[in-house]
Parts: sequence; structure tokens; C-alpha cells
Amino acid sequence: MAKFFLRKKIGDRVVNGHPWIFANELGDSDGTAEPGDIVEVYSYNGSFIGKGYINPASQIRIRLVTREKNEEVNDEFFYNRILEAWEYRKQIGYVENCRLIFGEADGLPALVIDKFNDHLVVQTLALGMDRWKTAIVAALQKIFNPKGIYERNDVPVRELEGLPQQKGFLSAPFDTNIVINENGLKFHVDIENGQKTGYFLDQQDNRRAIQHIVKGADVLGAFTYTGTFEIHAAHYGAKSVLGLDISENAVAQANKNAALNGLENIVKFEAMNAFDVLKQWGKEGRKWDVVMLDPPAFTKSRENIQKAITGYKEINLRGMKLIKPGGFLVTSSCTNLVPPELFLQIIEMAAKDARRKIRQVTWQTQSSDHPILWHVPNTQYLKFLIVQVM
Amino acid sequence: MAKFFLRKKIGDRVVNGHPWIFANELGDSDGTAEPGDIVEVYSYNGSFIGKGYINPASQIRIRLVTREKNEEVNDEFFYNRILEAWEYRKQIGYVENCRLIFGEADGLPALVIDKFNDHLVVQTLALGMDRWKTAIVAALQKIFNPKGIYERNDVPVRELEGLPQQKGFLSAPFDTNIVINENGLKFHVDIENGQKTGYFLDQQDNRRAIQHIVKGADVLGAFTYTGTFEIHAAHYGAKSVLGLDISENAVAQANKNAALNGLENIVKFEAMNAFDVLKQWGKEGRKWDVVMLDPPAFTKSRENIQKAITGYKEINLRGMKLIKPGGFLVTSSCTNLVPPELFLQIIEMAAKDARRKIRQVTWQTQSSDHPILWHVPNTQYLKFLIVQVM
Repeated sequence: MAKFFLRKKIGDRVVNGHPWIFANELGDSDGTAEPGDIVEVYSYNGSFIGKGYINPASQIRIRLVTREKNEEVNDEFFYNRILEAWEYRKQIGYVENCRLIFGEADGLPALVIDKFNDHLVVQTLALGMDRWKTAIVAALQKIFNPKGIYERNDVPVRELEGLPQQKGFLSAPFDTNIVINENGLKFHVDIENGQKTGYFLDQQDNRRAIQHIVKGADVLGAFTYTGTFEIHAAHYGAKSVLGLDISENAVAQANKNAALNGLENIVKFEAMNAFDVLKQWGKEGRKWDVVMLDPPAFTKSRENIQKAITGYKEINLRGMKLIKPGGFLVTSSCTNLVPPELFLQIIEMAAKDARRKIRQVTWQTQSSDHPILWHVPNTQYLKFLIVQVM
Repeated sequence: MAKFFLRKKIGDRVVNGHPWIFANELGDSDGTAEPGDIVEVYSYNGSFIGKGYINPASQIRIRLVTREKNEEVNDEFFYNRILEAWEYRKQIGYVENCRLIFGEADGLPALVIDKFNDHLVVQTLALGMDRWKTAIVAALQKIFNPKGIYERNDVPVRELEGLPQQKGFLSAPFDTNIVINENGLKFHVDIENGQKTGYFLDQQDNRRAIQHIVKGADVLGAFTYTGTFEIHAAHYGAKSVLGLDISENAVAQANKNAALNGLENIVKFEAMNAFDVLKQWGKEGRKWDVVMLDPPAFTKSRENIQKAITGYKEINLRGMKLIKPGGFLVTSSCTNLVPPELFLQIIEMAAKDARRKIRQVTWQTQSSDHPILWHVPNTQYLKFLIVQVM
């Protein structure tokens, strides 16, 4: 197995637990490796650090999968890691639907697996992980004997790894339109065409966090996608719920979800540009008891971070203006490029500009089936905040 | 009404929302005020800031209660503020037991009121607030018509205000040994002699957060006080629970609580010094699936912050060593002198020294009936963390 040595003068990020090794952190090497091969990594002075897969085409040259010299990376390795991850989800009580594998946080960099009851959706986002797809699928078959496994590798990040975007069955074909249960509600999941793996499991606990504040309330939701927060609001006793999404398709799905739960008389969805209409409604003086915002990331690169800050600030400012005194803002941010502290600062700026005082009610992150490694900042990406707006 | 002017060169802490004005922040004044009187506060150039009560004997010279010039501070003012606070608790779903008034966060600095079902416990921790006790009690009578109101002003911080430590009935006498419901369990609360107001309501949501990880587990709890976390663990399906507290009295109460819930065969309490026995058991190689730590603050002054850091680090280190690989540490810190980020760093240091890898499962603060004002750091004091320990 080829050996790669870290340069002398790099920080201790890798030693402290981060599994990524960038191209400019590597010095000498001993032996050759094909793209995707498992290689050994050593410090400059020859002490063993770990084993990982290499991709000369990627800025992230090596991603470590083990720190144990004696641990062989083979089919059994993947079986064991997936089984361990499943045991963990059972221990913390995420059984029916969960993120089964959350990449780095489960010691399997660039692998994402979501479990929707009897169905599994897989993303292998790096070349070295993609090469083990057969082993991964075999492990999933053995552990879960699922109704179906689907690949949602239609994501641009694969191209940084020289991998094609693709999707399709990894098991016998099955109906990819399924229904899952969450918090006593039912939701359609479109495994083939939904966003990401088809459904955002990371907000499953946060959706429950609105339970009390929406009771008897007029609720406005923006960036609703398939309407999960809004349908929860109706379920928890909102008087009226209006959900907005720019996509006609999302709105159609959201209406279907409302009907599936018999809540179509309480919750309505409309295809609208939230940025524009929230501003307009602010001018018109329209008010709601609760405003919920779950916008997209606004940026995908650190260079454009100011764009994200401006986007989050502006939409939260517009949202706050629509809230009756004493009402609530429910607001999320899903990009790890905006760390928790910065997100709070953005909300504070928005409140200042809106001339509103705020009080923190709830401050959470993604659900625990997406565990967080402190040394791997991208494992902490979701911010979920409820504030009372005076 | 006497007027007080802030010095020119002070920061914008007060303008940004902090209600405390320290002695050295005050410049000129116009008119005289008796200790405890309501006074007006202006910036150096005469713009109105707010009204608050003054105490020349206290480092915190003035605590603002309103920013509205037209708002009169009278009996009705206290009635309205308390009613508002109650409406808020109802909105967020904290009804049976809750912190009804959380001082600064409810616009009533130095006032704490806990509601234990039909009973209310009051703390007036500053002279200016103490003077309104009659109005406060009248408001509570009117809003709640409670079975009883009790004063737990037996706290040293009152002496900084020149106030005596005292406790007693603020209503007709009643039996101060009551039983409350929490998360489907029952707990004895000793209103007269329990710590603080008799019971720590701030952990009520966090106690529920251990629900899944304790299932079938052997659980060790330290600093258990009256055993609430441990009894929750037994209730949620732990195989065995051992709770430690240095106080014989706390252990007696904890055993009573276990029996009250019919869980005395699963959960046992012993009067022991956790610092010593955890170290001893570490040496002996004893192991548990889950270790829960809820230690006291270790320090009450910013000067002694290093003592708190050392205390938290040491006890968490000792706790981690007792955890089987893959088990869980449930750990709290209740002092605002250790901010959230610092607490996470302490746990990280402890893990490093224990040579254990950790993964964040749950990271919370106090329950939402203790709301947080970002500009008033002491409203954010409780840290509650669950990590998996590899």
C-alpha cells in the first residue's frame, strides 16, 4: 500500500481528528496509488496517522477512514461501520426514518445514506467512496433487507471528484414515490426527484419545536418546499397557515401533503417569490402571529459568504416586519458556511434594522441522527432558532 | 422623579438593552432619591433611556424596568408584567410548572418566581424589587388564586443589596412539602428547605433528552441532589441506576422520590463524595453505559473562574473514564460565568486527557420558560450536553 507523508509545517487539524488532507498538505510519498485507492498516511517524521482513499483530481486529496493501522479497509469494514452507525441511531431513538450515515461523523467521509422506513437512499460523493458502492449496497441488504435502495448521485459536488452525476436503482426497481411518517403526520417523499435524498430529515425535531407557539395562530411560512413545517403548524392547531415557495412543483407536492393529512382547509400553499412578497406585504402592513423561514443556503462557496449574510439578514428582516408584537419568528439556516454565532449576529442585525426587540425561545441544530464532530466543522451546519419578536 | 445621567464615555451596553447600570457609569444627577426609589435615566446629552430602581448600597446602582417614558411604575405595572410573562409561558406550553418570572428576561430585574402547579415561590433579590413585594403578591393572587405563595429570600446575594436573608409565607400558611408532576413522573418539592426555590425547573426538558440513551443501560449519576435525572433514567428503561450526592439529606429525598414512582428497585442513591469515588472507581476499572454529571457551579465570582474550569474539567475527565466505549456522557453546567463555548472547550480538554474521542449528540440550554436575552449574558447560564464517548 502506498505511503504518503504530511508536510512538516502543517497545523494539527488532521492529528486532532479532521479526516481531510488537502493537496498542499502532502509532501513525500512512497509507492504509487490509483485514483480511489486506499493509502497510508504518516506525519513528516514517519508516525502513522491513518488510512484513507486518495484522489489526485480532488483538492481534498485524501480522506481518512481509519486511524487504526491494523484495521483493513475491505467489504467487512464497510459492513461494520454501517452496522455501528445503525446501532447508534437505535440507541438515540431514530429508527423509522433517519440519516443512517452522516459522512465524516460516522467515519465514512463523503458517504450519505438516508433511511426512509423500508427504503434507503445513497450518495457516494467522492471517488474513493464511490468505488465501495457494491460493498455498501451489500451491507445494506444484509442489515436491513430493505424494500429498495436508490442512488441519488445527481449532485454537482461529484464533478470536483471527476465523477459523473447519476441516479438510479441500486436494488430491484421499486416505486420511488413513497409515504413516510413523521411526528404523527404523513409525507410524500419523491426519492427519484425530490431535493437531495428526497426529504430533509435534519429538521424532524425542529418541526416539533413549533408545537406550542402555533396554537390558534395565523402562520406564514416561506421557502416551504414540500410544506413540512406548515403542515406541522396546521396539525399543532394553527388557525390558518399560508406557505410560499417559488417552485410550482414544490407547491403541488405541499398541497398533496396537506391533503394526505386532511389539513387542506387550514394550510394553503402558493407559488410566489418570498423575497418580493414579504417586502410587499410589509409595506401593506399585513401581520401574522408566527412567521417561519427556511431559506436555501444563498451561497455554496466561502468566497461568497457576504452574499449569504446579506440574504439571511434581508429575509429575516422582512419576516420580522410581518410579525405582530409578541409573535414568533421561526428561522433556519442550512449552510455550514454560516457558523452558529454568525447566524445569531445576523438575526440580531435584522432585529435592529426592523426596530424590533427579540427574545430567544429555542436554539437548536440538526437532529441527533446527524451527529456533530467538533473538529469537523462541516458536520455542524443546521441552525434553528425561535425568537419572540416584541 | 430624580434624574440620573450616564457618563459620556461608557459603552452602548445599556442602550443595546442591558438593564443594569453600574455605579461608575453614572455622572450627574438632578434631584434626590431614597434607596429603592424609581428614578429616570438619561444619556449624558439628555436623551431618555429608561426608568429603574436605584440602590446606592449596590454595585449595580440602577436596574431599569422600562424604556418607555410614559409607562408608570406602579402596582398595575407589576400586574401587567406578570400577566404578560404568564401569557408567554402558556404560549410556549409551560403551564403546570414553570419559571413564571425570570428576572431581566421578563423585564423585571432581580425578581424570580417559580410556579409549582398551585404554589408560587418568590425571590426579590434587589432592594428596589423587594419594595414592590406587596404589589407582586397581590398580582399573583389576582392572576392565579394559588394555594399558597412562599418567599425564598434566604440567599446571600441579597446582602449585597443591604437586604436581610429571610423566608416565609406570603399567603396564608400551607404545607410546604408538595408533589409536582414532570414528564409523567412525580417529585417531592420542599418549598421551605429545598435548594433555591425548592426544585430545578430549568432542566425539565433536558431530563427528557436522556430518554433513549438510557434504555437497558447501567447508569451512574453524580451530584444527583433529589435524584430527578436518575429517576427519569429508571423511568425510561435503564437496567440499573446509581445516584451519588454528598448530602445525606438529598439522598434521603432522592430515595423518597424513587419510591414515590415505584422505581426503588432500579435506582439507588448513596451519600458519597463524587470527586473522590469517581476517581477511585476509575482506578478500579469500573464501567457504566451512561454517566450523568450535574455538578454545582464551583465558583460564584469571575475572579475564581479558573476554579470552575478546573472543577468542570476534572469531574468530566473522571466521568468519561468510567464510560464503556460507545457509551454516553450527560453533563451540565449551571453557572453563567462559564459561557457555552468555554464549556465545550472544557469537555474537549477532558476528553483529550481521558484519551477518549467524543461525538456530540445533544446540546441544549435551560428550558424556554427561562428565555434568553442576547444582550443580557446572565440570562444564558445552563449548558446541557450529551456526547457519545468512544
